[in-house]
Amino acid sequence: MIFRQLFERESSTYTYLIGCTETRETALIDTVKTEVPKYLQLLDELDLKLVFVLDTHTHADHITGAGELRDLTGCKTLLGEETHSACVSVGLKDGDRIPVGNLVLTAIYTPGHTDDSYSYLLEQDGELYIFSGDTLLIRGTGRTDFQNGNPEAQYHSLFDKLLRLPNHTWVYPGHDYKGWLVSTIGEEKQHNPRLQLGDIRAYVDFMRNLRLPNPMLMDVAVLANRACGK
Amino acid sequence: MIFRQLFERESSTYTYLIGCTETRETALIDTVKTEVPKYLQLLDELDLKLVFVLDTHTHADHITGAGELRDLTGCKTLLGEETHSACVSVGLKDGDRIPVGNLVLTAIYTPGHTDDSYSYLLEQDGELYIFSGDTLLIRGTGRTDFQNGNPEAQYHSLFDKLLRLPNHTWVYPGHDYKGWLVSTIGEEKQHNPRLQLGDIRAYVDFMRNLRLPNPMLMDVAVLANRACGK
Repeated sequence: MIFRQLFERESSTYTYLIGCTETRETALIDTVKTEVPKYLQLLDELDLKLVFVLDTHTHADHITGAGELRDLTGCKTLLGEETHSACVSVGLKDGDRIPVGNLVLTAIYTPGHTDDSYSYLLEQDGELYIFSGDTLLIRGTGRTDFQNGNPEAQYHSLFDKLLRLPNHTWVYPGHDYKGWLVSTIGEEKQHNPRLQLGDIRAYVDFMRNLRLPNPMLMDVAVLANRACGK
Repeated sequence: MIFRQLFERESSTYTYLIGCTETRETALIDTVKTEVPKYLQLLDELDLKLVFVLDTHTHADHITGAGELRDLTGCKTLLGEETHSACVSVGLKDGDRIPVGNLVLTAIYTPGHTDDSYSYLLEQDGELYIFSGDTLLIRGTGRTDFQNGNPEAQYHSLFDKLLRLPNHTWVYPGHDYKGWLVSTIGEEKQHNPRLQLGDIRAYVDFMRNLRLPNPMLMDVAVLANRACGK
Protein backbone atom coordinates (compact mmCIF):
# COMPACT_ATOMS: atom_id res chain seq x y z
CA MET A 1 0.00 0.00 0.00
CA ILE A 2 1.13 3.53 -0.75
CA PHE A 3 -0.22 5.84 1.92
CA ARG A 4 0.11 9.57 2.42
CA GLN A 5 -1.59 11.99 4.76
CA LEU A 6 -1.64 15.59 3.52
CA PHE A 7 -2.56 18.78 5.38
CA GLU A 8 -4.40 21.85 4.12
CA ARG A 9 -3.63 24.70 6.44
CA GLU A 10 -6.53 27.10 5.81
CA SER A 11 -9.26 24.69 6.94
CA SER A 12 -6.93 22.30 8.86
CA THR A 13 -8.16 19.50 6.60
CA TYR A 14 -6.41 16.16 6.25
CA THR A 15 -6.53 14.51 2.85
CA TYR A 16 -5.54 10.86 2.43
CA LEU A 17 -3.92 9.19 -0.54
CA ILE A 18 -4.31 5.42 -0.64
CA GLY A 19 -2.69 3.60 -3.53
CA CYS A 20 -2.21 0.00 -4.54
CA THR A 21 1.48 -0.85 -4.91
CA GLU A 22 0.80 -3.39 -7.67
CA THR A 23 -1.83 -1.78 -9.92
CA ARG A 24 -1.01 1.87 -8.99
CA GLU A 25 -4.75 2.57 -8.70
CA THR A 26 -5.33 5.24 -6.07
CA ALA A 27 -8.07 6.88 -4.05
CA LEU A 28 -8.06 10.30 -2.41
CA ILE A 29 -10.27 10.95 0.60
CA ASP A 30 -11.47 14.50 1.44
CA THR A 31 -9.69 16.65 -1.09
CA VAL A 32 -9.50 20.46 -0.98
CA LYS A 33 -9.98 22.35 -4.22
CA THR A 34 -7.03 24.74 -3.80
CA GLU A 35 -4.69 21.77 -3.34
CA VAL A 36 -5.58 20.02 -6.61
CA PRO A 37 -2.29 20.95 -8.37
CA LYS A 38 -0.31 19.40 -5.50
CA TYR A 39 -2.36 16.18 -5.62
CA LEU A 40 -1.70 15.93 -9.35
CA GLN A 41 2.00 16.53 -8.78
CA LEU A 42 2.23 13.82 -6.13
CA LEU A 43 0.18 11.30 -8.14
CA ASP A 44 2.46 11.90 -11.10
CA GLU A 45 5.69 11.68 -9.11
CA LEU A 46 4.61 8.47 -7.38
CA ASP A 47 3.41 7.06 -10.71
CA LEU A 48 -0.18 6.58 -9.50
CA LYS A 49 -3.50 6.56 -11.31
CA LEU A 50 -6.40 8.29 -9.55
CA VAL A 51 -9.55 6.15 -9.77
CA PHE A 52 -11.71 7.45 -6.89
CA VAL A 53 -12.15 10.68 -5.00
CA LEU A 54 -14.21 10.08 -1.87
CA ASP A 55 -15.68 12.63 0.49
CA THR A 56 -16.64 11.63 4.02
CA HIS A 57 -19.53 14.12 3.83
CA THR A 58 -20.61 17.43 2.30
CA HIS A 59 -18.13 19.78 3.93
CA ALA A 60 -19.06 23.17 5.32
CA ASP A 61 -15.54 24.45 5.89
CA HIS A 62 -13.73 23.88 2.61
CA ILE A 63 -14.51 23.29 -1.04
CA THR A 64 -13.94 19.78 -2.31
CA GLY A 65 -11.52 19.10 -5.16
CA ALA A 66 -13.70 16.19 -6.35
CA GLY A 67 -15.30 17.88 -9.37
CA GLU A 68 -12.06 19.35 -10.65
CA LEU A 69 -10.18 16.09 -10.16
CA ARG A 70 -12.90 14.19 -11.99
CA ASP A 71 -12.75 16.61 -14.91
CA LEU A 72 -8.96 16.43 -15.05
CA THR A 73 -8.42 12.70 -14.51
CA GLY A 74 -11.68 10.93 -15.29
CA CYS A 75 -11.82 9.44 -11.79
CA LYS A 76 -15.11 8.59 -10.11
CA THR A 77 -16.40 10.74 -7.22
CA LEU A 78 -18.04 8.96 -4.31
CA LEU A 79 -20.19 10.17 -1.43
CA GLY A 80 -23.04 8.69 0.58
CA GLU A 81 -26.34 8.25 -1.25
CA GLU A 82 -27.93 10.61 1.32
CA THR A 83 -25.97 13.54 -0.09
CA HIS A 84 -27.66 16.53 -1.69
CA SER A 85 -24.71 16.96 -4.00
CA ALA A 86 -25.63 16.72 -7.67
CA CYS A 87 -22.25 15.55 -8.85
CA VAL A 88 -21.58 12.18 -7.29
CA SER A 89 -20.65 9.38 -9.71
CA VAL A 90 -21.77 6.73 -7.26
CA GLY A 91 -23.85 7.13 -4.09
CA LEU A 92 -22.58 4.85 -1.35
CA LYS A 93 -24.58 2.75 1.12
CA ASP A 94 -23.51 1.35 4.47
CA GLY A 95 -21.30 -1.68 3.89
CA ASP A 96 -20.37 -0.87 0.30
CA ARG A 97 -16.91 -2.08 -0.66
CA ILE A 98 -14.76 0.17 -2.84
CA PRO A 99 -11.92 -1.66 -4.60
CA VAL A 100 -8.75 0.39 -5.08
CA GLY A 101 -6.52 -2.00 -6.99
CA ASN A 102 -5.95 -4.85 -4.55
CA LEU A 103 -7.06 -2.74 -1.58
CA VAL A 104 -10.64 -2.43 -0.34
CA LEU A 105 -12.24 0.51 1.44
CA THR A 106 -15.48 -0.30 3.25
CA ALA A 107 -18.05 2.48 3.65
CA ILE A 108 -19.58 2.77 7.11
CA TYR A 109 -22.58 5.07 7.46
CA THR A 110 -21.87 7.30 10.46
CA PRO A 111 -24.47 10.10 10.44
CA GLY A 112 -24.54 12.82 13.09
CA HIS A 113 -22.14 15.54 11.96
CA THR A 114 -24.26 15.61 8.80
CA ASP A 115 -26.86 13.19 7.49
CA ASP A 116 -24.49 12.13 4.71
CA SER A 117 -21.45 11.36 6.92
CA TYR A 118 -19.53 8.17 6.15
CA SER A 119 -16.34 6.71 7.53
CA TYR A 120 -14.08 4.50 5.43
CA LEU A 121 -12.39 1.39 6.81
CA LEU A 122 -9.26 -0.17 5.36
CA GLU A 123 -7.61 -3.41 6.43
CA GLN A 124 -4.12 -4.02 5.07
CA ASP A 125 -1.13 -6.07 6.22
CA GLY A 126 -2.75 -6.78 9.57
CA GLU A 127 -3.38 -3.11 10.29
CA LEU A 128 -6.80 -1.44 10.45
CA TYR A 129 -7.37 2.18 9.46
CA ILE A 130 -10.55 4.18 9.90
CA PHE A 131 -10.87 7.44 7.99
CA SER A 132 -13.39 8.97 10.32
CA GLY A 133 -14.16 12.31 8.65
CA ASP A 134 -15.77 14.72 11.12
CA THR A 135 -17.49 11.98 13.10
CA LEU A 136 -14.58 11.01 15.34
CA LEU A 137 -11.79 13.57 15.75
CA ILE A 138 -8.65 13.27 17.86
CA ARG A 139 -9.90 14.05 21.38
CA GLY A 140 -13.09 15.47 19.90
CA THR A 141 -16.12 14.85 17.70
CA GLY A 142 -17.64 16.85 14.84
CA ARG A 143 -20.29 19.45 15.63
CA THR A 144 -23.90 18.42 15.01
CA ASP A 145 -25.71 21.74 14.75
CA PHE A 146 -26.21 22.22 11.01
CA GLN A 147 -26.72 20.34 7.72
CA ASN A 148 -29.15 17.91 9.35
CA GLY A 149 -26.62 17.16 12.06
CA ASN A 150 -28.01 15.12 14.91
CA PRO A 151 -26.28 14.39 18.21
CA GLU A 152 -28.33 11.24 18.91
CA ALA A 153 -27.35 9.81 15.53
CA GLN A 154 -23.72 10.74 16.16
CA TYR A 155 -23.75 9.02 19.53
CA HIS A 156 -24.91 5.81 17.86
CA SER A 157 -22.38 6.21 15.04
CA LEU A 158 -19.64 6.56 17.63
CA PHE A 159 -20.62 4.02 20.26
CA ASP A 160 -22.37 1.41 18.10
CA LYS A 161 -20.03 1.56 15.10
CA LEU A 162 -16.62 3.24 15.34
CA LEU A 163 -15.79 2.43 18.96
CA ARG A 164 -16.58 -1.24 18.30
CA LEU A 165 -13.54 -1.43 16.04
CA PRO A 166 -10.49 -3.05 17.66
CA ASN A 167 -8.50 -0.79 19.97
CA HIS A 168 -5.43 -0.90 17.72
CA THR A 169 -7.35 0.60 14.74
CA TRP A 170 -5.63 3.76 13.49
CA VAL A 171 -7.94 6.78 13.53
CA TYR A 172 -7.28 9.23 10.69
CA PRO A 173 -9.71 12.14 11.08
CA GLY A 174 -10.93 14.79 8.64
CA HIS A 175 -9.33 17.61 10.60
CA ASP A 176 -7.15 18.43 13.52
CA TYR A 177 -6.66 21.93 14.85
CA LYS A 178 -3.88 21.28 17.37
CA GLY A 179 -1.29 19.59 15.11
CA TRP A 180 -2.01 15.96 15.97
CA LEU A 181 -2.12 13.62 13.03
CA VAL A 182 -3.38 10.23 14.11
CA SER A 183 -4.83 8.38 17.06
CA THR A 184 -6.21 4.93 17.77
CA ILE A 185 -9.67 3.71 18.76
CA GLY A 186 -8.27 2.56 22.13
CA GLU A 187 -6.72 5.95 22.78
CA GLU A 188 -9.93 7.80 21.91
CA LYS A 189 -12.07 5.49 24.04
CA GLN A 190 -9.86 6.28 26.99
CA HIS A 191 -8.87 9.92 26.47
CA ASN A 192 -11.43 11.65 24.25
CA PRO A 193 -13.36 13.87 26.71
CA ARG A 194 -16.60 13.67 24.71
CA LEU A 195 -16.60 9.89 24.90
CA GLN A 196 -16.47 10.00 28.70
CA LEU A 197 -19.78 11.81 29.20
CA GLY A 198 -21.59 8.72 30.39
CA ASP A 199 -24.69 8.15 28.29
CA ILE A 200 -26.58 9.35 25.25
CA ARG A 201 -28.53 11.94 27.25
CA ALA A 202 -25.38 13.60 28.56
CA TYR A 203 -23.75 13.49 25.11
CA VAL A 204 -26.76 15.06 23.39
CA ASP A 205 -27.03 17.79 26.03
CA PHE A 206 -23.35 18.56 25.70
CA MET A 207 -23.50 18.80 21.90
CA ARG A 208 -26.68 20.91 21.99
CA ASN A 209 -25.03 23.43 24.29
CA LEU A 210 -21.82 23.99 22.34
CA ARG A 211 -23.21 27.13 20.63
CA LEU A 212 -20.39 27.36 18.08
CA PRO A 213 -20.20 30.12 15.47
CA ASN A 214 -20.84 28.98 11.90
CA PRO A 215 -17.74 28.03 9.88
CA MET A 216 -16.45 31.05 7.98
CA LEU A 217 -16.86 29.41 4.60
CA MET A 218 -20.17 27.68 5.36
CA ASP A 219 -22.51 29.54 2.99
CA VAL A 220 -20.04 29.32 0.14
CA ALA A 221 -18.73 25.84 0.81
CA VAL A 222 -21.99 23.90 1.19
CA LEU A 223 -23.42 25.35 -2.01
CA ALA A 224 -20.16 24.84 -3.88
CA ASN A 225 -19.77 21.29 -2.64
CA ARG A 226 -23.29 20.39 -3.73
CA ALA A 227 -22.11 21.49 -7.16
CA CYS A 228 -19.00 19.33 -6.94
CA GLY A 229 -16.74 22.18 -5.84
CA LYS A 230 -17.42 24.19 -8.95
CA MET B 1 7.58 1.25 18.48
CA ILE B 2 5.21 4.07 19.32
CA PHE B 3 5.55 6.78 16.72
CA ARG B 4 3.82 10.13 16.30
CA GLN B 5 4.47 13.06 14.05
CA LEU B 6 3.15 16.39 15.38
CA PHE B 7 2.78 19.72 13.61
CA GLU B 8 3.32 23.23 14.97
CA ARG B 9 1.50 25.62 12.70
CA GLU B 10 3.27 28.93 13.41
CA SER B 11 6.70 27.77 12.23
CA SER B 12 5.46 24.74 10.24
CA THR B 13 7.66 22.55 12.43
CA TYR B 14 7.34 18.79 12.68
CA THR B 15 8.08 17.23 16.03
CA TYR B 16 8.56 13.47 16.35
CA LEU B 17 7.72 11.24 19.28
CA ILE B 18 9.51 7.89 19.28
CA GLY B 19 8.73 5.53 22.13
CA CYS B 20 9.66 1.98 23.05
CA THR B 21 6.57 -0.22 23.38
CA GLU B 22 8.19 -2.38 26.08
CA THR B 23 10.02 0.05 28.38
CA ARG B 24 7.85 3.13 27.53
CA GLU B 25 11.05 5.23 27.29
CA THR B 26 10.55 7.97 24.73
CA ALA B 27 12.45 10.59 22.75
CA LEU B 28 11.13 13.79 21.20
CA ILE B 29 12.92 15.31 18.21
CA ASP B 30 12.67 19.08 17.49
CA THR B 31 10.20 20.32 20.05
CA VAL B 32 8.58 23.77 20.05
CA LYS B 33 8.33 25.62 23.35
CA THR B 34 4.68 26.71 22.96
CA GLU B 35 3.65 23.09 22.42
CA VAL B 36 5.15 21.72 25.63
CA PRO B 37 1.77 21.29 27.40
CA LYS B 38 0.52 19.18 24.48
CA TYR B 39 3.63 16.98 24.53
CA LEU B 40 3.14 16.40 28.25
CA GLN B 41 -0.53 15.55 27.69
CA LEU B 42 0.29 13.03 24.97
CA LEU B 43 3.15 11.44 26.92
CA ASP B 44 0.85 11.06 29.88
CA GLU B 45 -2.07 9.66 27.87
CA LEU B 46 0.15 7.15 26.07
CA ASP B 47 1.81 6.23 29.37
CA LEU B 48 5.29 7.17 28.17
CA LYS B 49 8.38 8.38 29.99
CA LEU B 50 10.38 11.12 28.29
CA VAL B 51 14.11 10.35 28.46
CA PHE B 52 15.60 12.42 25.63
CA VAL B 53 14.78 15.64 23.82
CA LEU B 54 16.90 15.94 20.70
CA ASP B 55 17.26 18.91 18.40
CA THR B 56 18.51 18.44 14.85
CA HIS B 57 20.23 21.85 15.11
CA THR B 58 20.00 25.28 16.74
CA HIS B 59 16.79 26.56 15.15
CA ALA B 60 16.36 30.10 13.85
CA ASP B 61 12.59 29.92 13.30
CA HIS B 62 11.16 28.64 16.56
CA ILE B 63 12.14 28.29 20.20
CA THR B 64 12.96 24.79 21.39
CA GLY B 65 10.99 23.16 24.19
CA ALA B 66 14.12 21.28 25.31
CA GLY B 67 14.95 23.36 28.38
CA GLU B 68 11.40 23.47 29.69
CA LEU B 69 10.91 19.74 29.10
CA ARG B 70 14.17 18.99 30.90
CA ASP B 71 13.12 21.09 33.87
CA LEU B 72 9.69 19.47 34.00
CA THR B 73 10.60 15.83 33.36
CA GLY B 74 14.30 15.43 34.11
CA CYS B 75 14.97 14.17 30.57
CA LYS B 76 18.34 14.70 28.88
CA THR B 77 18.68 17.26 26.06
CA LEU B 78 20.88 16.31 23.12
CA LEU B 79 22.37 18.31 20.28
CA GLY B 80 25.57 18.09 18.24
CA GLU B 81 28.80 18.88 20.07
CA GLU B 82 29.35 21.73 17.60
CA THR B 83 26.45 23.67 19.06
CA HIS B 84 26.87 27.04 20.73
CA SER B 85 23.98 26.26 23.04
CA ALA B 86 24.92 26.31 26.71
CA CYS B 87 22.26 23.90 27.84
CA VAL B 88 22.93 20.56 26.20
CA SER B 89 23.14 17.57 28.54
CA VAL B 90 25.19 15.58 26.04
CA GLY B 91 26.95 16.82 22.88
CA LEU B 92 26.62 14.31 20.07
CA LYS B 93 29.25 13.19 17.57
CA ASP B 94 28.77 11.58 14.18
CA GLY B 95 27.90 7.92 14.66
CA ASP B 96 26.76 8.22 18.27
CA ARG B 97 24.02 5.77 19.19
CA ILE B 98 21.18 6.97 21.42
CA PRO B 99 19.26 4.16 23.11
CA VAL B 100 15.54 4.84 23.63
CA GLY B 101 14.43 1.73 25.47
CA ASN B 102 14.97 -1.07 22.95
CA LEU B 103 15.16 1.37 20.04
CA VAL B 104 18.35 3.05 18.84
CA LEU B 105 18.69 6.42 17.13
CA THR B 106 22.00 6.95 15.32
CA ALA B 107 23.32 10.51 15.00
CA ILE B 108 24.60 11.46 11.54
CA TYR B 109 26.50 14.72 11.27
CA THR B 110 24.97 16.59 8.32
CA PRO B 111 26.30 20.18 8.42
CA GLY B 112 25.30 22.75 5.85
CA HIS B 113 22.06 24.34 7.03
CA THR B 114 24.01 25.15 10.20
CA ASP B 115 27.35 23.87 11.46
CA ASP B 116 25.57 21.92 14.20
CA SER B 117 23.05 20.10 11.97
CA TYR B 118 22.49 16.41 12.64
CA SER B 119 20.09 13.87 11.22
CA TYR B 120 18.87 10.91 13.25
CA LEU B 121 18.49 7.43 11.78
CA LEU B 122 16.20 4.76 13.18
CA GLU B 123 15.90 1.17 12.03
CA GLN B 124 12.90 -0.76 13.32
CA ASP B 125 10.93 -3.77 12.13
CA GLY B 126 12.66 -3.74 8.77
CA GLU B 127 11.84 -0.07 8.15
CA LEU B 128 14.37 2.77 8.04
CA TYR B 129 13.51 6.30 9.13
CA ILE B 130 15.69 9.39 8.75
CA PHE B 131 14.76 12.48 10.74
CA SER B 132 16.51 14.90 8.46
CA GLY B 133 15.96 18.24 10.21
CA ASP B 134 16.51 21.15 7.83
CA THR B 135 19.13 19.32 5.79
CA LEU B 136 16.79 17.37 3.51
CA LEU B 137 13.24 18.69 3.15
CA ILE B 138 10.44 17.27 1.00
CA ARG B 139 11.29 18.54 -2.50
CA GLY B 140 13.68 21.05 -0.94
CA THR B 141 16.75 21.57 1.25
CA GLY B 142 17.38 23.92 4.17
CA ARG B 143 18.84 27.34 3.46
CA THR B 144 22.59 27.76 4.07
CA ASP B 145 22.99 31.52 4.41
CA PHE B 146 23.28 32.06 8.17
CA GLN B 147 24.49 30.44 11.42
CA ASN B 148 27.66 29.13 9.75
CA GLY B 149 25.58 27.57 7.00
CA ASN B 150 27.65 26.27 4.12
CA PRO B 151 26.29 25.01 0.80
CA GLU B 152 29.40 22.91 0.02
CA ALA B 153 29.07 21.13 3.35
CA GLN B 154 25.35 20.62 2.73
CA TYR B 155 26.01 19.13 -0.69
CA HIS B 156 28.33 16.57 0.91
CA SER B 157 25.84 15.89 3.72
CA LEU B 158 23.14 15.23 1.13
CA PHE B 159 25.02 13.32 -1.56
CA ASP B 160 27.65 11.53 0.53
CA LYS B 161 25.44 10.70 3.52
CA LEU B 162 21.63 10.97 3.32
CA LEU B 163 21.16 9.99 -0.33
CA ARG B 164 23.29 6.89 0.24
CA LEU B 165 20.58 5.49 2.48
CA PRO B 166 18.34 2.87 0.81
CA ASN B 167 15.63 4.27 -1.46
CA HIS B 168 12.85 2.94 0.78
CA THR B 169 14.07 4.98 3.81
CA TRP B 170 11.28 7.22 5.12
CA VAL B 171 12.28 10.88 5.18
CA TYR B 172 10.75 12.83 8.07
CA PRO B 173 11.89 16.46 7.77
CA GLY B 174 12.02 19.31 10.29
CA HIS B 175 9.46 21.36 8.39
CA ASP B 176 7.12 21.37 5.48
CA TYR B 177 5.31 24.44 4.23
CA LYS B 178 2.98 22.83 1.70
CA GLY B 179 1.26 20.24 3.90
CA TRP B 180 3.28 17.19 2.93
CA LEU B 181 4.30 14.99 5.82
CA VAL B 182 6.74 12.37 4.68
CA SER B 183 8.77 11.27 1.68
CA THR B 184 11.37 8.62 0.88
CA ILE B 185 15.01 8.83 -0.13
CA GLY B 186 14.16 7.33 -3.54
CA GLU B 187 11.42 9.88 -4.11
CA GLU B 188 13.69 12.80 -3.17
CA LYS B 189 16.55 11.52 -5.34
CA GLN B 190 14.19 11.49 -8.28
CA HIS B 191 11.89 14.46 -7.69
CA ASN B 192 13.61 16.99 -5.40
CA PRO B 193 14.52 19.83 -7.80
CA ARG B 194 17.60 20.84 -5.80
CA LEU B 195 19.05 17.35 -6.08
CA GLN B 196 18.87 17.47 -9.87
CA LEU B 197 21.24 20.43 -10.31
CA GLY B 198 24.07 18.26 -11.55
CA ASP B 199 27.18 18.91 -9.45
CA ILE B 200 28.48 20.66 -6.37
CA ARG B 201 29.28 23.85 -8.28
CA ALA B 202 25.72 24.22 -9.58
CA TYR B 203 24.28 23.41 -6.15
CA VAL B 204 26.47 25.97 -4.36
CA ASP B 205 25.68 28.67 -6.94
CA PHE B 206 21.98 27.95 -6.61
CA MET B 207 22.04 28.14 -2.81
CA ARG B 208 24.18 31.32 -2.81
CA ASN B 209 21.68 33.05 -5.08
CA LEU B 210 18.50 32.30 -3.14
CA ARG B 211 18.58 35.68 -1.33
CA LEU B 212 15.91 34.76 1.19
CA PRO B 213 14.69 37.16 3.89
CA ASN B 214 15.74 36.26 7.43
CA PRO B 215 13.24 34.17 9.41
CA MET B 216 10.91 36.41 11.38
CA LEU B 217 11.93 34.97 14.71
CA MET B 218 15.64 34.68 13.94
CA ASP B 219 17.10 37.23 16.36
CA VAL B 220 14.94 36.00 19.19
CA ALA B 221 15.05 32.29 18.42
CA VAL B 222 18.79 31.76 18.02
CA LEU B 223 19.59 33.57 21.25
CA ALA B 224 16.78 31.81 23.09
CA ASN B 225 17.77 28.41 21.76
CA ARG B 226 21.38 28.89 22.85
CA ALA B 227 19.91 29.38 26.30
CA CYS B 228 17.83 26.20 26.01
CA GLY B 229 14.66 28.01 24.99
CA LYS B 230 14.48 30.01 28.20
